[in-house]
Amino acid sequence: MKADVKEPGSAPTGGAGVEKTVQALAAAFGNRVVTSRAVREQHGNTVTWLPSQPPDAVVFPQSVEDVQQIVRICAANGTPVIPFGTGSSLEGHVNAPRGGVSIDFRDMNKVLAVHAEDLDCVIQPGITRKALNDYLRSSGVFFPIDPGADASLGGMAATRASGTNAVRYGTMKDNVLALKVVLASGEIMTTAHRAKKTSAGYDLTRLIVGSEGTLGVIVELTLRLAGIPEAISGGVCPFPSVEACCNTAIQTIQTGIPIARIELLDALQVRAINLHSKLGLAEMPMLFVEFHGTEASVAEQSERFGEIAAEFGGGPFQWTTRQEERTRLWDARHHAAFSNFALRPGSQMIATDVCVPISRLAECVTQTQADIAESRIVAPIVGHVGDGNFHLTMLVDMTDADEVKRAKALNQRLIERALSMDGTCTGEHGVGQGKMKYLEAEYGKPALAAMAAIKRALDPQDIMNPGKIIPAV
Amino acid sequence: MKADVKEPGSAPTGGAGVEKTVQALAAAFGNRVVTSRAVREQHGNTVTWLPSQPPDAVVFPQSVEDVQQIVRICAANGTPVIPFGTGSSLEGHVNAPRGGVSIDFRDMNKVLAVHAEDLDCVIQPGITRKALNDYLRSSGVFFPIDPGADASLGGMAATRASGTNAVRYGTMKDNVLALKVVLASGEIMTTAHRAKKTSAGYDLTRLIVGSEGTLGVIVELTLRLAGIPEAISGGVCPFPSVEACCNTAIQTIQTGIPIARIELLDALQVRAINLHSKLGLAEMPMLFVEFHGTEASVAEQSERFGEIAAEFGGGPFQWTTRQEERTRLWDARHHAAFSNFALRPGSQMIATDVCVPISRLAECVTQTQADIAESRIVAPIVGHVGDGNFHLTMLVDMTDADEVKRAKALNQRLIERALSMDGTCTGEHGVGQGKMKYLEAEYGKPALAAMAAIKRALDPQDIMNPGKIIPAV
Repeated sequence: MKADVKEPGSAPTGGAGVEKTVQALAAAFGNRVVTSRAVREQHGNTVTWLPSQPPDAVVFPQSVEDVQQIVRICAANGTPVIPFGTGSSLEGHVNAPRGGVSIDFRDMNKVLAVHAEDLDCVIQPGITRKALNDYLRSSGVFFPIDPGADASLGGMAATRASGTNAVRYGTMKDNVLALKVVLASGEIMTTAHRAKKTSAGYDLTRLIVGSEGTLGVIVELTLRLAGIPEAISGGVCPFPSVEACCNTAIQTIQTGIPIARIELLDALQVRAINLHSKLGLAEMPMLFVEFHGTEASVAEQSERFGEIAAEFGGGPFQWTTRQEERTRLWDARHHAAFSNFALRPGSQMIATDVCVPISRLAECVTQTQADIAESRIVAPIVGHVGDGNFHLTMLVDMTDADEVKRAKALNQRLIERALSMDGTCTGEHGVGQGKMKYLEAEYGKPALAAMAAIKRALDPQDIMNPGKIIPAV
Repeated sequence: MKADVKEPGSAPTGGAGVEKTVQALAAAFGNRVVTSRAVREQHGNTVTWLPSQPPDAVVFPQSVEDVQQIVRICAANGTPVIPFGTGSSLEGHVNAPRGGVSIDFRDMNKVLAVHAEDLDCVIQPGITRKALNDYLRSSGVFFPIDPGADASLGGMAATRASGTNAVRYGTMKDNVLALKVVLASGEIMTTAHRAKKTSAGYDLTRLIVGSEGTLGVIVELTLRLAGIPEAISGGVCPFPSVEACCNTAIQTIQTGIPIARIELLDALQVRAINLHSKLGLAEMPMLFVEFHGTEASVAEQSERFGEIAAEFGGGPFQWTTRQEERTRLWDARHHAAFSNFALRPGSQMIATDVCVPISRLAECVTQTQADIAESRIVAPIVGHVGDGNFHLTMLVDMTDADEVKRAKALNQRLIERALSMDGTCTGEHGVGQGKMKYLEAEYGKPALAAMAAIKRALDPQDIMNPGKIIPAV
């Protein structure tokens, strides 16, 4: 149950213009505009403790021109525009705090071109990462970025998402080559083309990646792809402590092993996935690892990793190149968040997302473990530890005001700890509504003022996903 | 000899305020402000065919606070501010078309911190890439980005530079973790911290990288470093044609060989470096290649590359892990541009810089070779062909108006060809003054309008390196 949920079905809140907007949209798009309570609630729903704030209407465009028309209608009436992919964002990105129109990209989910020889593809924003990889399977290439959810690629670009492969393949900032964006004016901005690199002017691609719909609506993406590795090896390695896991990760990165995935699970998280996925793993801190390369190279990498792990008391490290075993393991890892419900049925999951320089990781995680214990919050830990990024999945009884308070304080202290270590409040989830209050501590006033100035310059009416990242301008 | 050179020593052109600016700077910085003709000429000098436009004064700051004070003084009088590293930029980035103050970072060249365990370092903008790598030598880490010149890191960030290692290590956009920037207001903007990834708001780091001083002055950089590879192998492979070189590069990338460097030199370029560096290479098209990894992995990569080269008629491919031989080769490659003077003493060198998707590379280079022949311009070709980026070094007699006209037309057609292939007019040199006229064809009006809006938002007086990238706003 959630606190402070906006009363669903309440009157439109998008200001005086919203009725005109909805009428104009209905005239243009017929039954592709939906104002039913159930659909609106689904689109303003958040998956953490943020209150849900449904939009006034949801529209399902089928083309770039549709999106232009929607934005122009909204702009004419000062109505907010909120892009929607799959709704898996964690910080209230799809909420409509001032009402407005949710643009659902469900029907814009096509692959427009695959250039396997250039390792790129051109897609519409509504396709999900799994659907894209299914489509690409026969081409010898894949798209490596994998947040836990089967998110849409448009949403992943908007939040600068990453996931387990980022340590090897980078984040969305490294894997979006070019975008087409509908601006607040309704015009289409092309941010780049397909060349692998360019020095031609401001990097509009990377300005839009991570801008969460606040500067424009992404309507087409050119993504960088990777060749499917000739060989993949992977496995699980138990450790006596989370600290030993972190130190092994640090040493692995510093040694220059080009590890593809290195994921920390604490004992509680292992217990949760055992409950959910029946893996039968020892309930100890673990690293899940994967290596990509040639047969010879993945064998060499695996052996070297095993040696480092043993130095820190880890092992036995068993690795395999057999796909079924690896898939079972990584499916379990990707279901880690969901599996946590088994630990505390009926609770609300709230994910934290700090990222610190890797040299500070062991210290940051260890201090946080002590803090979790003191807070009496159930909070398993998973981490993309090769990047210094880790999550607590706090399982909170939202009807217990004291527990909610303790969970919020735990998150606050975690962020303060990360910032004091030269880290960030969010490694991959984005700011949305939930992290706005931390940005000034992270960046200082001049950077925030610069972000606000850019927002005003590109969206003077403040209609593009307002109330996210930047306070009202 | 250059055409249209601004008369050196002419009256200040920075507007009515510039005299006040120079007086205030002199009061604050004494003999660290220089207005002598020789020093001004050196700072407004360009290394290609663009006319030189010296600033009214040159100032040598020693601290971030100095830069803040300089910018505040300039802002108070509406005087342009032009950051200066080593002056090796190729598109007139350091010119002062409206006069103003050149900020020379010669004295801000310190390494502030090395975090080898996090693979990062914090530096001042004036240090050059070679000086940084000399400093890092004993730490087991290096900074991989290597444009031909020994440029300053501040300048490399400002122009989004890359070089021979980019195919493996990326460009400056991938290797700058965070920046401190003095804005037009004199305030210091911190764009990020040392965490390897973040989703916290707009990517100000990558907005500044490539902005060429037009949005602010870079005063501190946090750079990503790489571990010095355990083993390095490299060598030279001759080919029957430039097309065969390109096809080998394409196949190497597509096969997923993590090649660290793959550089094309056409026969004329090989002749030039033979003349200059006495290498005694066969004067045929060549690939210079290098592999980084473990002993086993560099051997495997070298063998595989040799097999691919043989498929396209290349070879014999001789590779070595001996450092002296490799160094001799790569020094010659880095002196390629300079060595071209040997082909035509007294000529002016003008470098082109297109980049295309790699699948179009062979076609683009082949068509360009035909065009060079038809243009009767002496123009050896070098290319970072793993990225689809190649340069003609046009050797032009600037006193021959017809030849200058033919060279300009060759460049124009090359850029049009690249744009028609989904490429860019500049892969790594930047826009400066020289490429401004191509941006609209490359991006279209909405992207250019967005860049101008961002420029106005952050620099409403248009004093930050005006006349570069964006027309006067």
